[in-house]
Amino acid sequence: MSNLSLLTDFYQLSMMQGYWDNGLGEDEVVFDVFFRKNPCNNGFTLIAGVESVIDYIENLAFDEADLDYLKSVGFQDGFLDKLRHFRFTGTIDGVPEGTVMFPQEPVMRVRANCFEAQLIESTILNLINYQSLIATKAARICEAAQGDAVFEFGLRRAQGPDAAILGSRAAYIGGCVATSNVLAGQQFGIPVVGTHAHSWIQKFDSELEAFRAYAKTYPDKCLLLVDTYNTLKSGVPNAITVFQELRQQGYEPKGIRIDSGDLSYLTKVAREQLDAAGFPNAAIIASSDLDEDKIHSLKMQGARIDSWGVGTNLITSSNCPALGGVYKLVAAEQKGVLEPKIKISDNPQKITNPGYKKVTRIYDESGLFALADLIMLEDEQIDETEPLTIFHPIYTWKTKTFRRYSLKELMIPYFHQGKAVYQKQSVRNVRSHAQLELDSLWPEYKRLQFPQIYKVDLSKKLWKLKQEMMHQHQHQEP
Amino acid sequence: MSNLSLLTDFYQLSMMQGYWDNGLGEDEVVFDVFFRKNPCNNGFTLIAGVESVIDYIENLAFDEADLDYLKSVGFQDGFLDKLRHFRFTGTIDGVPEGTVMFPQEPVMRVRANCFEAQLIESTILNLINYQSLIATKAARICEAAQGDAVFEFGLRRAQGPDAAILGSRAAYIGGCVATSNVLAGQQFGIPVVGTHAHSWIQKFDSELEAFRAYAKTYPDKCLLLVDTYNTLKSGVPNAITVFQELRQQGYEPKGIRIDSGDLSYLTKVAREQLDAAGFPNAAIIASSDLDEDKIHSLKMQGARIDSWGVGTNLITSSNCPALGGVYKLVAAEQKGVLEPKIKISDNPQKITNPGYKKVTRIYDESGLFALADLIMLEDEQIDETEPLTIFHPIYTWKTKTFRRYSLKELMIPYFHQGKAVYQKQSVRNVRSHAQLELDSLWPEYKRLQFPQIYKVDLSKKLWKLKQEMMHQHQHQEP
Repeated sequence: MSNLSLLTDFYQLSMMQGYWDNGLGEDEVVFDVFFRKNPCNNGFTLIAGVESVIDYIENLAFDEADLDYLKSVGFQDGFLDKLRHFRFTGTIDGVPEGTVMFPQEPVMRVRANCFEAQLIESTILNLINYQSLIATKAARICEAAQGDAVFEFGLRRAQGPDAAILGSRAAYIGGCVATSNVLAGQQFGIPVVGTHAHSWIQKFDSELEAFRAYAKTYPDKCLLLVDTYNTLKSGVPNAITVFQELRQQGYEPKGIRIDSGDLSYLTKVAREQLDAAGFPNAAIIASSDLDEDKIHSLKMQGARIDSWGVGTNLITSSNCPALGGVYKLVAAEQKGVLEPKIKISDNPQKITNPGYKKVTRIYDESGLFALADLIMLEDEQIDETEPLTIFHPIYTWKTKTFRRYSLKELMIPYFHQGKAVYQKQSVRNVRSHAQLELDSLWPEYKRLQFPQIYKVDLSKKLWKLKQEMMHQHQHQEP
Repeated sequence: MSNLSLLTDFYQLSMMQGYWDNGLGEDEVVFDVFFRKNPCNNGFTLIAGVESVIDYIENLAFDEADLDYLKSVGFQDGFLDKLRHFRFTGTIDGVPEGTVMFPQEPVMRVRANCFEAQLIESTILNLINYQSLIATKAARICEAAQGDAVFEFGLRRAQGPDAAILGSRAAYIGGCVATSNVLAGQQFGIPVVGTHAHSWIQKFDSELEAFRAYAKTYPDKCLLLVDTYNTLKSGVPNAITVFQELRQQGYEPKGIRIDSGDLSYLTKVAREQLDAAGFPNAAIIASSDLDEDKIHSLKMQGARIDSWGVGTNLITSSNCPALGGVYKLVAAEQKGVLEPKIKISDNPQKITNPGYKKVTRIYDESGLFALADLIMLEDEQIDETEPLTIFHPIYTWKTKTFRRYSLKELMIPYFHQGKAVYQKQSVRNVRSHAQLELDSLWPEYKRLQFPQIYKVDLSKKLWKLKQEMMHQHQHQEP
């Protein structure tokens, strides 16, 4: 990424100048990053984009061209001088990339002075919202594919180059096995795949001639697109002819791809044709505006598809193209002391959880399955030798007591007083972590339609603090 | 944009190596860029992203790191040596950025050798699809706002940094008057706007104190966000208090912003409160998950909103997050001659228009209103002194004769034999062109729901060529 220091909403800079002008710029504040709803009515959200956030914050600095521009749109010299020496000096904690998270849980917490904390809101959200959205969508699509390979093919419909590149990375984290995007392959070491398009076939006088030319160049990885003219009458028979010629030369073909038509009917017949011709190991890859619902439906009908290429609907998360992550003030220094802050709303779902907080995941004794999460204040500890009782934050009579359990605090340090301390991982490792996280969820939470809702409760101390602050606010009403 | 040369689908490179290996890499081909459906059921598509395409193609070159990577994923040395010296040497024509276009019309045509034409497909589509989508969405939203100012506020929900930046530019072209995105402002000279967030209010002991602090820094551009606690009981009364204090100091306030709640009710009462307090010129700006349907609905109820801030639903085109632009082979050199090519499909909508083509727009005599478009072969000319009869390409008995009309060919040169000849415009000029284009459409084509379908016909010569090729193909069927 190039210099993104000016990638922020104008009001962040207005507020920064306001804090500076009012002598409040150095006051410490805490902001939480969280979301209120899983995308696509999913049962969880898979967090991605953490590495982009680290890169962005590490590289924050304003050059003279930036400052000249800001002056031209009305900012004052004294403020610009503050920006000239800007470096991020705060502390950020958050969950490792590839962690499964749930609504209302802090995914990151930023503790910094007002000035710095405000600047970074918009781009942190931009990076986390999109990449988490696509990782989650990929996890849904891979869930529907039930272990079949899923390829990310969305470059041409992605919302710009970054979406194609960062989306491809997120899709891989979410479970895709490869991408068609060569630049994403180079940048992140994601496996790349692809064979030929319809235009290859059209370029030749006949489909058979086109297939032969392709097989000549790629005898050892011959995978042919068979739907340019007529899949079953022309494409598959011509492919079989070429596969037979390849076998005579000592090569085994890889298979065929079908990109249009009724994929259930076509793949069943194509499978029979390939099997009858002696190519039971030739794979069938399908693509054609697929998503998790279509894959599920095709699987239900017994379509004979080995691998799935998914484009538009994955890379844009087309039926839900935004994750609504927000960045809310939860504590602020007032007269030298960090005080919890709450944002009240008529909509109870929108009332924030106040204070400097952390998230603890409760696992079964083996540590393999996640049972519930607790949002707690930073200074709280749980005695694991005692039974642990949690309660619903609204229907407080609904309680659950764990007697044998294990705990994990989910956040790790990203930045400590301005220094990046997050250990970057290869994308392959992030993907492995994500797969372990998905494995830790009971299938009920991963169901594609109406999943069971995972329990996210507040610690007693946090719950009390929130109640007190809500009541206090009510008494202050005009 | 950084080096995007590897931003392509793997199969483009597979095919390029195949063409090279089969001695076909130098053969000339023509590809058309077009789309089959307007986004959001709109009556037109506003083309944007042309400048990004020019930049991308001008900068195409593979460095040694790119070639090393390609070698590592299996490409051959001879082919990589071809890539080492790669420059785009072809000819591209297309419509000026900010042109209104319709389904099936070539938006661009790429005439180049196989090798070059194939490489650039994926990124051309990526750049044109997204930016045209957002320009069109912005045009819809501005149509709903009926001349009110619309601000683009989508940075935090855009699908990555490029989407935020290029999307902001496209939204401006489509009719937005400003953006919150400071980097887009700097890069393209788009006006930037913004005041403060809820966190500013929370940072202070009271809303009134926060408003006063903001007014102190920005006495001459005081616009206050009034919905942090209670819009009508606290926010607006406190804003009025501060506005009165400002007026005593000789400043006129700008207005208020409301970001939640029932925007129709709240703005009507807030308007009364402001008017009664002597601030009839204080503007009311609304934001809160808006789109063209919500804006239309609020306007129908007489909401007192002067300007609209639109975020997620604009920057992602949330109800239709992809424009399905495609890149299809329409002619190819065979034995030294450029022959038209057709792609047959069971779906008649998906049969391509063959040949090297252009688009002519038919206007009324004044040249002010567009009446219909004709897709023609490149070598065709129309005699403007004679009546012009066009006919429906399927229901051919449906004809229309123009007696007084004027014509414009829509495509202009982008690249001539590798040299960029497109005259880049300031975004302000592109926006002006787009507004003229929108003005040239009768309101019936701009209706947000079930717009009248604009006529796009084929010239007689092109229609005949297509018929012949379809019948020829039918006889070749196995």
